[in-house]
Amino acid sequence: MPDPYGAPEGSMVLAARMERAAVSAAEAGLAGLLVTPGPDLTWLTGYRPHTTERLTALLLVSGRRPQLLVPALEAPDAERAPGAHALTITGWTDGQDPYAALAPLFDPRGRYGISDSAWALHLLAFQRACPGVSFGAFTELLPMLRAVKDAYEVERLAAAGAAADAAYEDIVSLRFAGRREKDVAADLARLLREHGHSRVDFTVVGAGAHSANPHHDAGDQVIENGDMVVMDFGGLMDGYGSDTTRTVHVGEPTAEERKVHDVVREAQQVAFEAVRPGVACQEIDRAARKVIRAAGYGEYFIHRTGHGIGVTTHEPPYLVEGEHLPLRPGMSFSIEPGIYLPGRFGVRVEDIVVCTESGGRRLNNTDRGLLVVS
Amino acid sequence: MPDPYGAPEGSMVLAARMERAAVSAAEAGLAGLLVTPGPDLTWLTGYRPHTTERLTALLLVSGRRPQLLVPALEAPDAERAPGAHALTITGWTDGQDPYAALAPLFDPRGRYGISDSAWALHLLAFQRACPGVSFGAFTELLPMLRAVKDAYEVERLAAAGAAADAAYEDIVSLRFAGRREKDVAADLARLLREHGHSRVDFTVVGAGAHSANPHHDAGDQVIENGDMVVMDFGGLMDGYGSDTTRTVHVGEPTAEERKVHDVVREAQQVAFEAVRPGVACQEIDRAARKVIRAAGYGEYFIHRTGHGIGVTTHEPPYLVEGEHLPLRPGMSFSIEPGIYLPGRFGVRVEDIVVCTESGGRRLNNTDRGLLVVS
Repeated sequence: MPDPYGAPEGSMVLAARMERAAVSAAEAGLAGLLVTPGPDLTWLTGYRPHTTERLTALLLVSGRRPQLLVPALEAPDAERAPGAHALTITGWTDGQDPYAALAPLFDPRGRYGISDSAWALHLLAFQRACPGVSFGAFTELLPMLRAVKDAYEVERLAAAGAAADAAYEDIVSLRFAGRREKDVAADLARLLREHGHSRVDFTVVGAGAHSANPHHDAGDQVIENGDMVVMDFGGLMDGYGSDTTRTVHVGEPTAEERKVHDVVREAQQVAFEAVRPGVACQEIDRAARKVIRAAGYGEYFIHRTGHGIGVTTHEPPYLVEGEHLPLRPGMSFSIEPGIYLPGRFGVRVEDIVVCTESGGRRLNNTDRGLLVVS
Repeated sequence: MPDPYGAPEGSMVLAARMERAAVSAAEAGLAGLLVTPGPDLTWLTGYRPHTTERLTALLLVSGRRPQLLVPALEAPDAERAPGAHALTITGWTDGQDPYAALAPLFDPRGRYGISDSAWALHLLAFQRACPGVSFGAFTELLPMLRAVKDAYEVERLAAAGAAADAAYEDIVSLRFAGRREKDVAADLARLLREHGHSRVDFTVVGAGAHSANPHHDAGDQVIENGDMVVMDFGGLMDGYGSDTTRTVHVGEPTAEERKVHDVVREAQQVAFEAVRPGVACQEIDRAARKVIRAAGYGEYFIHRTGHGIGVTTHEPPYLVEGEHLPLRPGMSFSIEPGIYLPGRFGVRVEDIVVCTESGGRRLNNTDRGLLVVS
């Protein structure tokens, strides 16, 4: 199986990440962090177990050695994880109570962060085993935990973005008219892999009225001359994500189609120019929305402007009204406004952007114009 | 993407499942069920959204119409789900609070079951939005929710088992010595797909000392003459799971290797013969363990005897000490005892078994002997 998250940065980097995470938790007034399988655990330890009903959990507490509890039969794998040397690994056996085993390590009245994607099954069992302990999700308590990328991570994101751009350059030279959406989607997936992706997460191809459904996947509909086609595609390369959207047109667009595309492109540009350290996430959303609203399409921009990206293709920070978190250098996220006219057509333009000291840096650099394809 | 769960049984069957689930919840003293994306939601509604930080949740309450809350931009997909006609589907928009939107539908002092794999992020938000409501995981409150398979489901499991058996018949005629574990694993994956699987979940190939690690994956180790090789493989076919293990030997085994294999095979047989309605799950585990303990290998059987299987390859019921739940006709599960001698070799033999009125029915029927391969 291709490595979904990847953490070959070396065990010292991982040990430092764990320490930094524990310190961040303490600074946020938390007694510690409870990390379950998924991107948090992989980012911290390089360990990538399956998520199952058998508890695997990492407890991080500032000033204490990280404790990893794993099913006994998975202990050999855990001990080979890149960050294992910095961990105390303990196995539990079927029939034992893993929650009771970890409970004595908790501050009995402490508040702990827990991975967003921890299973309810496990959280409820911890709440029962540690009745005085309270939990909050990382997204709420420590939204910045993985949000600020270091230089190593930014370069990986840039490489993934360049690969996605290469896939786009290739796809627009292929034929659209007369083929099914899913055929173009399959080509996109193949091209992402050819350009180095280990995993393809999504290949949205929405033609004609389907382009007005932001999360349309790709189906049997045959693409025809006159169709607007939204393509939103991405995945993981060397453990880091890509996510880009371009909207093309089969044959010559109408004046209205051109106008809507111009509005979206302008909104994307204005939002991009608003990126700089200290600006609240919601301001990027507002910048894009203002352009679309001024053009009279406000009610047809039905989603937030963007989301973070890193070892997953969807993570904090979220560029959405109500998100007051300020941007910091290293934060990496999509900017992807859209206009969706139900039953008619839709347009979306999306780049991954990194916040730098001097403003935004785009990691997608293909033509953002309304390309005419055949 | 291949359909991971599959639910083409028709919308009437799904509506009936939802009603049955709601009634089961009421009978268990619950105010209702909160179902999030994953196997529960697919089994109930045929809807298969991605699991993300954006809330999708189905609320089932006996005597009321099921309510499905989805992100607005995914509403078109939800409305096309096979069970959609029996649902009231409501979209929420980025920036709105979906938990507050659902909160008025809860009995303010009620107890609700929630999907095991619901994200902590969502559960914690519901706990905050509905402070008088309490939650428990399905596995604890309604372990039988999907555990008893109807005839349609059993036949699908049988077909998946037959396909896994065909893959095994093919693999043992191929060469083992001189190839890497991962090469054999790749062959297993290919064969499962050739025999009809839409998804391969695991292809464990553990050779030599690796066979003593129950969850060893498959690596670069070259298989040699004299190696014991454990192969544990399965996935999904037409939405239902397969999971079988056979242990083979490259060249002639030693007397000790034969003996250990005989013990495991005997344990598997005795456990199988213990299957009948009304017997507690833990009794199947005890039956297998008793054989292995009597042979002097008790400390080397380091996992439970089995797990349920259905639209996932790992679900209740669990055949483990402490599980007092009685078997019922239609329950389907693995029986997979093993002996693991650290640093030396291991053996496991696994079949999927369905409990019928008259006892167990095996869904894997290949030779359980210690085949000698080349």
